[in-house]
Amino acid sequence: MRRAIELAARGLGSTSPNPVVGCVVLDREGRTVGEGWHQRAGGPHAEVHALAEAGADAAGGTAVVTLEPCNHTGRTGPCAQALLEAGVARVVYAVPDPSPGAQGGARTLAAAGVDVEGGLLADEAAAGNVAWLTSVLHGRPYVTWKYAATLDGRTAAADGSSRWITSPESRADVHRLRAESDAVLVGSGTARADDPHLAVRKVPGAVQPLRVVVDTDAAVVRQGARVLDDAAPTLVAVADDAETTALQAALRTAQGTAQLVRLPRAGDGAPGLDLRALLGALHERGVRSVLVEGGATLAGAFVAAGLVDRVVGYLAPVLLGAGPQALGDAGISTLAQALRLTVNDTVRLGPDLRITAVCGAPRAAPAGGRPAQSDHPEQSEES
Amino acid sequence: MRRAIELAARGLGSTSPNPVVGCVVLDREGRTVGEGWHQRAGGPHAEVHALAEAGADAAGGTAVVTLEPCNHTGRTGPCAQALLEAGVARVVYAVPDPSPGAQGGARTLAAAGVDVEGGLLADEAAAGNVAWLTSVLHGRPYVTWKYAATLDGRTAAADGSSRWITSPESRADVHRLRAESDAVLVGSGTARADDPHLAVRKVPGAVQPLRVVVDTDAAVVRQGARVLDDAAPTLVAVADDAETTALQAALRTAQGTAQLVRLPRAGDGAPGLDLRALLGALHERGVRSVLVEGGATLAGAFVAAGLVDRVVGYLAPVLLGAGPQALGDAGISTLAQALRLTVNDTVRLGPDLRITAVCGAPRAAPAGGRPAQSDHPEQSEES
Ligand SMILES: NC(=O)c1ccc[n+]([C@@H]2O[C@H](COP(=O)([O-])OP(=O)(O)OC[C@H]3O[C@@H](n4cnc5c(N)ncnc54)[C@H](OP(=O)(O)O)[C@@H]3O)[C@@H](O)[C@H]2O)c1
Ligand SMILES: NC(=O)c1ccc[n+]([C@@H]2O[C@H](COP(=O)([O-])OP(=O)(O)OC[C@H]3O[C@@H](n4cnc5c(N)ncnc54)[C@H](OP(=O)(O)O)[C@@H]3O)[C@@H](O)[C@H]2O)c1
Repeated sequence: MRRAIELAARGLGSTSPNPVVGCVVLDREGRTVGEGWHQRAGGPHAEVHALAEAGADAAGGTAVVTLEPCNHTGRTGPCAQALLEAGVARVVYAVPDPSPGAQGGARTLAAAGVDVEGGLLADEAAAGNVAWLTSVLHGRPYVTWKYAATLDGRTAAADGSSRWITSPESRADVHRLRAESDAVLVGSGTARADDPHLAVRKVPGAVQPLRVVVDTDAAVVRQGARVLDDAAPTLVAVADDAETTALQAALRTAQGTAQLVRLPRAGDGAPGLDLRALLGALHERGVRSVLVEGGATLAGAFVAAGLVDRVVGYLAPVLLGAGPQALGDAGISTLAQALRLTVNDTVRLGPDLRITAVCGAPRAAPAGGRPAQSDHPEQSEES
Repeated sequence: MRRAIELAARGLGSTSPNPVVGCVVLDREGRTVGEGWHQRAGGPHAEVHALAEAGADAAGGTAVVTLEPCNHTGRTGPCAQALLEAGVARVVYAVPDPSPGAQGGARTLAAAGVDVEGGLLADEAAAGNVAWLTSVLHGRPYVTWKYAATLDGRTAAADGSSRWITSPESRADVHRLRAESDAVLVGSGTARADDPHLAVRKVPGAVQPLRVVVDTDAAVVRQGARVLDDAAPTLVAVADDAETTALQAALRTAQGTAQLVRLPRAGDGAPGLDLRALLGALHERGVRSVLVEGGATLAGAFVAAGLVDRVVGYLAPVLLGAGPQALGDAGISTLAQALRLTVNDTVRLGPDLRITAVCGAPRAAPAGGRPAQSDHPEQSEES
């Protein structure tokens, strides 16, 4: 199964809106005779690849799959059927398929006499598929907020200079993050200040994400904006009632695909767009993972709305003592309301540190997810 | 030598104003026959301990020492002489002794026919002795700034609540840091807001640090302040011209040793005391390492003065989006002036991360110190 999870991960960034799936087929004697992974949406499923490689050796053998084999006839035919036709005697899978159309693959196989077992390394496999599982369960993409800051939490110096706080290694890693995401998102403040490009560069074979600018009043994206080049598709999100003549003229000059989407404004007099509606619109477009690249205002709004699943921070060993913060107001005024995360991973990138932390988000895995480690009994220790 | 460095580290926190030193004595056949380390100021040096354990087996053998054996007759007699008397044939040391009174031990030994070699693992041994070496070379203690913050760099929520941002594991680690320090220092703002205790708790065998409050106008430390209990000695630093009647009354009620020291105010109209003078006064009192525990204002002043050698940050995986910063104004307005450090070490402490970073400080080691890793060629990569 560990090998199947490895294979699945090769599909990260190119299978959306489908899950990543890996499959290993063993023959009667337990020898690996076929391996496969779901490579891109619309292409064959992992099981089909692995069975094709195994050929006749699959008969009487075992298929190890990271996700419950599908039961429906999509663009590629149900995998449960393919496994039966290949004469596989045993199917071991990690995570049950929670999507309405696909469920029941395990039941179909068992009814046909196949020995079926689910739940093996389910947590690990679910972690690899977290974006897709989040989207199936919550009807919205998985949201990662990325920031780059100094040790003392500044994203720029007092005079605004920020090139470069983090190292080339960190900046290259951001491109890898983008490549794994279906969409990359910035607020109008960042679009105005930085005219960011947001496409993936120097990641071989990367599928470009959808570039999204949240520009409520259609006031920022104009002809010549770097997001309007042909490196990747672009979506500009504006309010229902925004005056878009100038924006539409700019979009017509775009070298690539550039569209606008109209969305409701945030309720209760809050500024900007309704972020749930924004994520819903992205979900409808097949986006299963979003990388929020800033700025502080938009990131604060995502945190306030409870819409951040993961945080990736690039910390440079630099002290400034002044300058803007990474995270703006998130409606949190006291420590008890703070968003508590669990650190997943820390990595050195050149001189910098990358810290990845996740919310104690609902897990789809059937085997109870690992409990978040952030609940500690308060001790009466003092300074 | 690695073993000798390990032995030396056992003295951290209790040898000041002396260095930490470790020594291993090998007999003629290269077998370890004696080990020792300098345990406390005024006690025998490492070599004396190791020679005592080795007894007659030292004759014709080798002494491996982390620091060049001393030549002077201090409270304990010169070690060079003790090595000669024991009949040691060879002495290998790591770091040459830069202090005026002690130098020349290697020359004395060589002149007496001992085979002497210096520089072995010098960088590693110098790192273990960094506080003492800094104090000998710069005439001031080694300064560590410690802070505790959220991932987004806040030390408290908007309403001031900060208990507890970091975990019990992190808070216990702070006590270990204090135990390794000769003095622990806070500004009057922290003294006023938190009435901190600043002593070491729950570290077996710890030598208590000197507690220092920087209270320019003698306005904050009053009877009943927790720093006036008998857990550790206390020093209150005030200005030359401060009105201290109330402070002195408070000090007379102290349960432990509590003194005040008068120092010049900072020059150029800057607020507070002259920090170099403060460190000089601590140095005179035998303090070789200072832990600056905050707050943000005082830490910013230390950074501005170029007086921070090391930063230890306890980062909790928490987001707040508002609240005070860890580091206050340090006179840095543009990125080119930023203080760039090198990350030494990252450790998970319960849910938190501890990051240790050092300044590319001058090294005392004779073998050229490792170059700082923070100079990267700037690439023309963009967002
Ligand atoms: N170091 C880093 O990691 C990093 C990353 C990115 C940016 N930055 C820096 O951050 C700065 C820009 O940040 P910023 O905070 O000014 O701007 P921002 O967060 O990029 O954009 C904020 C704007 O987005 C719009 N918006 C739309 N819907 C929103 C909603 N629901 N909630 C909040 N905002 C919404 C609002 O303007 P309208 O409603 O008027 O459209 C809002 O003012 C730049 O200087 C940039 O260089 C740093
Ligand atoms: N999370 C953490 O790691 C942490 C650690 C410590 C404190 N804190 C929090 O920080 C807050 C207090 O911080 P703060 O910034 O207000 O106060 P602070 O840094 O503790 O003290 C600043 C004061 O120290 C005095 N001072 C003396 N010489 C100075 C010099 N050369 N430069 C600068 N200041 C000098 C000044 O007052 P006078 O000249 O009037 O004496 C100055 O206002 C508290 O809320 C505390 O809870 C957090």
